[in-house]
Amino acid sequence: MGREHSDISSNRSWQPNPALDVPLYRQIEAYIRQKIITGEWSAGTRLPSQRTLAASMSVNRSTLVTALDNLTAAGMIEGRHGGGTYVSGTGWHSMAHASVPNWSEAAEEGWYYPNLPEIQQINQAEFRPGIIRLGTGELAPEQMPNEAFNEILRNMSSRTHPLNYIEPQGSLELREALSVHLQSSGIQASPDSILIVSGSLQALHLISVGLLPRGSAVLLEKPSYLYSIHAFQSAGLKLSGITMDEEGILLGHLKRAIQSAKMAKSELDSESFPLLYTIPSFHNPTGSVMSCQRREELMSLARNSGISILEDAAYQELWLDHPPPPPLKASDQEGRVLHMGTLSKAVSPGLRLGWLVGPVPVIRRLADIKMQTDYGTSSLAQEAAALWFAGGHHTSHMERLRPELRRRRDLMLGLLHRYFHDIAEWEKPEGGFYIWIRFTADSLSIRRLFHACLEKDVLIHPGYLYDRLDASHIRLSYAYASQDEMERGLIVLAQEACRLMKPSV
Amino acid sequence: MGREHSDISSNRSWQPNPALDVPLYRQIEAYIRQKIITGEWSAGTRLPSQRTLAASMSVNRSTLVTALDNLTAAGMIEGRHGGGTYVSGTGWHSMAHASVPNWSEAAEEGWYYPNLPEIQQINQAEFRPGIIRLGTGELAPEQMPNEAFNEILRNMSSRTHPLNYIEPQGSLELREALSVHLQSSGIQASPDSILIVSGSLQALHLISVGLLPRGSAVLLEKPSYLYSIHAFQSAGLKLSGITMDEEGILLGHLKRAIQSAKMAKSELDSESFPLLYTIPSFHNPTGSVMSCQRREELMSLARNSGISILEDAAYQELWLDHPPPPPLKASDQEGRVLHMGTLSKAVSPGLRLGWLVGPVPVIRRLADIKMQTDYGTSSLAQEAAALWFAGGHHTSHMERLRPELRRRRDLMLGLLHRYFHDIAEWEKPEGGFYIWIRFTADSLSIRRLFHACLEKDVLIHPGYLYDRLDASHIRLSYAYASQDEMERGLIVLAQEACRLMKPSV
Repeated sequence: MGREHSDISSNRSWQPNPALDVPLYRQIEAYIRQKIITGEWSAGTRLPSQRTLAASMSVNRSTLVTALDNLTAAGMIEGRHGGGTYVSGTGWHSMAHASVPNWSEAAEEGWYYPNLPEIQQINQAEFRPGIIRLGTGELAPEQMPNEAFNEILRNMSSRTHPLNYIEPQGSLELREALSVHLQSSGIQASPDSILIVSGSLQALHLISVGLLPRGSAVLLEKPSYLYSIHAFQSAGLKLSGITMDEEGILLGHLKRAIQSAKMAKSELDSESFPLLYTIPSFHNPTGSVMSCQRREELMSLARNSGISILEDAAYQELWLDHPPPPPLKASDQEGRVLHMGTLSKAVSPGLRLGWLVGPVPVIRRLADIKMQTDYGTSSLAQEAAALWFAGGHHTSHMERLRPELRRRRDLMLGLLHRYFHDIAEWEKPEGGFYIWIRFTADSLSIRRLFHACLEKDVLIHPGYLYDRLDASHIRLSYAYASQDEMERGLIVLAQEACRLMKPSV
Repeated sequence: MGREHSDISSNRSWQPNPALDVPLYRQIEAYIRQKIITGEWSAGTRLPSQRTLAASMSVNRSTLVTALDNLTAAGMIEGRHGGGTYVSGTGWHSMAHASVPNWSEAAEEGWYYPNLPEIQQINQAEFRPGIIRLGTGELAPEQMPNEAFNEILRNMSSRTHPLNYIEPQGSLELREALSVHLQSSGIQASPDSILIVSGSLQALHLISVGLLPRGSAVLLEKPSYLYSIHAFQSAGLKLSGITMDEEGILLGHLKRAIQSAKMAKSELDSESFPLLYTIPSFHNPTGSVMSCQRREELMSLARNSGISILEDAAYQELWLDHPPPPPLKASDQEGRVLHMGTLSKAVSPGLRLGWLVGPVPVIRRLADIKMQTDYGTSSLAQEAAALWFAGGHHTSHMERLRPELRRRRDLMLGLLHRYFHDIAEWEKPEGGFYIWIRFTADSLSIRRLFHACLEKDVLIHPGYLYDRLDASHIRLSYAYASQDEMERGLIVLAQEACRLMKPSV
């Protein structure tokens, strides 16, 4: 089902025109034939199910079947054992030609891991009309600073733009603005030690292929956002999760993990040192904040054990009640911490704008790889971001955003209390976007809950995306859904959870 | 020298202030100490040479040496056998701590290949003030459509922006505009079969990790742009170069390469089919155009032998005298051709905006990987690009651009004739940016010519970037340098070439 959706369903689907003189099934036949002949639906492509196709074309299933039968008779499509209809690779094509490229097989070949099926489904479902997104980790469109961006665009429209290739580390104007901005969190970083990236996911990707040898260990909190993406695993790195308590990662566990990573390392005969990936402030997905004392102890453990730290500060500024302790990078005296920041969470994910702060040799190395990956981040995005900081928009936006997010958090907490108090547990987050819900009934399958909600157009993020062995959590976000959607969605969620918890199901 | 430059030289360099009461060497000492203490210059970082540092700080070398001596005495930096001064990893640091992360070593560890030293030098040198860029493959700033972009930005400043995450394949508005645009080159592609990428380099990267199994062969023209980047090699693919004549890739050679790739494949027990990467129109670096007949024969060979084709159409529209034959994709009836396009060459490289057209399963697979790499291309860039096409800017820009590029090409040809007629050979290109120059004297070392010109602030692209064994070519571009720079740069080039050709050198 995942594959089918990811193959050829479209967001804006074609429909036959009843006003035409040509029968509907003929129009459908011609449409599919055209797709196959031009190679858009290449040999081996799986067609959506008859139900899905008929619905998207707004025709009776029998009309569709007539068209499909004709195409099957013409050798253009074929049913397969095990179900599914596929574009034929051996029919009309091979009569004329020696062989036809089977891109569907090729698409299985590359070594980069595909996204988890659930992630692919989430990525697709997020753009489905009418879907209620209860887990989405981004601001709702109405919270985006559209007006500020329009002011920036007006400002830009009378400037000369850096439309040529820009410097490997990113535009100096933006790096200078960021250097000033970072001082507000206590980080001293010259423009030389900053790399502009297309969002923090790209920073992770660059680090994984540019700094860490294959087979080396990356330590991280468990659960963690990092488990939900493949950047590190696709680069051949091994994730080693460390248990957390309410003050953050447990240092005793971390120490033991460092020991075993070092032992594995000596077998690998590698010069590398273990890296710890951590989200100290408003952790994704748990929402927790690493305490001040834990941060100090972590930095001291890092010094003594020789590990480096990759600090993901995506939510650092999104505090709601009071600011979190300063980032780890602020107390870093020896270039031990790589610090990642982004505009995706607090401002605009679509802009694709993030930064990485670290020792100059690291930044230069990663800049070189970035140049090989995409030749730098879009100059328009960089120009807009530089004006965003330099024009003071960031400060005023954060001041407007915090009360609104606080209102949303409190709303969701109230709804949770009303509908979930007897079936789940959670902590009140002090910032970020997320509430990490634990369902107390062992009998509830989170996987089934995810699919049942999706059937009812409610999208949640299952906890096992962030910890493969997790069987009881989901991640909710109060950032995206509207007040009305939040209430409707949570009611569906509670109903489905209760239904699935019943032993009879 | 490459490493040193790539380590810590800056474009806008710090200088001590003679007006202060503190001696210059003390200011320098404090500056470097600060860099080391904050970890920006981490343990193992190589300092620029004394000559370079003294020049960038505008101080006497003796002043600098005093500062460096003090820092050495403090254990913060150290000379090493074999030359070079490095930030110490065992001095003041280790007195306090067990171990200090040596990021410089880590930066050697990742498996992604660094850029070739010459490419790194070119990337850095391009931003050096006063440099004459005779090889740069991009339009000069004054040819960029600044006015059109300002109009687009004004238009955008009254719209609501897609500031949220956008669909995996890219904005539908842009894909619809591209679907219309592609029809002008005879390509029928629905928005479903188009993937928006951050420039064609990213498309190459996605294909290399998403479609091709490690160890598989990629056939390509020799020389080729693809040899100058590492996207494919870093993904473990083997490049196999095919000789060209003036009508394009030689099909007899191609046939033999397909045979041996297939034999190697059966050893690998892989289901993959060989892929041919080609730039049929205004090839980079040779500027040649694949003839109409060769294109037909190539497509027929591809059908009969089962290979797929990756068509790089970056220069397709940049014809100067008359349009080239239609792209291979236009005659593709079975989804055998992946077609890459970009705004980087004809419009703006800084925008980072390209597209890939192909069978839907391939496009979906690559979109999924792109989501894992950078979560999509910047929405601002996509919005601007959509308006660029929809607003008719593209057509009028191309009409303005062609005469200007024609003028530049003819100017360079004239200068070449004047200064190089007895030492080199070349063909007149009918489009694109490049003239592929062959020096006739065997005694000339292109590597030495590159470095000698760089010393004199003239940047050329050595032919061995595009074919490791090439010993006689350089790539010139008439797109970037101004008329005055072109003449001054070519005179330096001719002088240096003559000097280095002499047996005594």
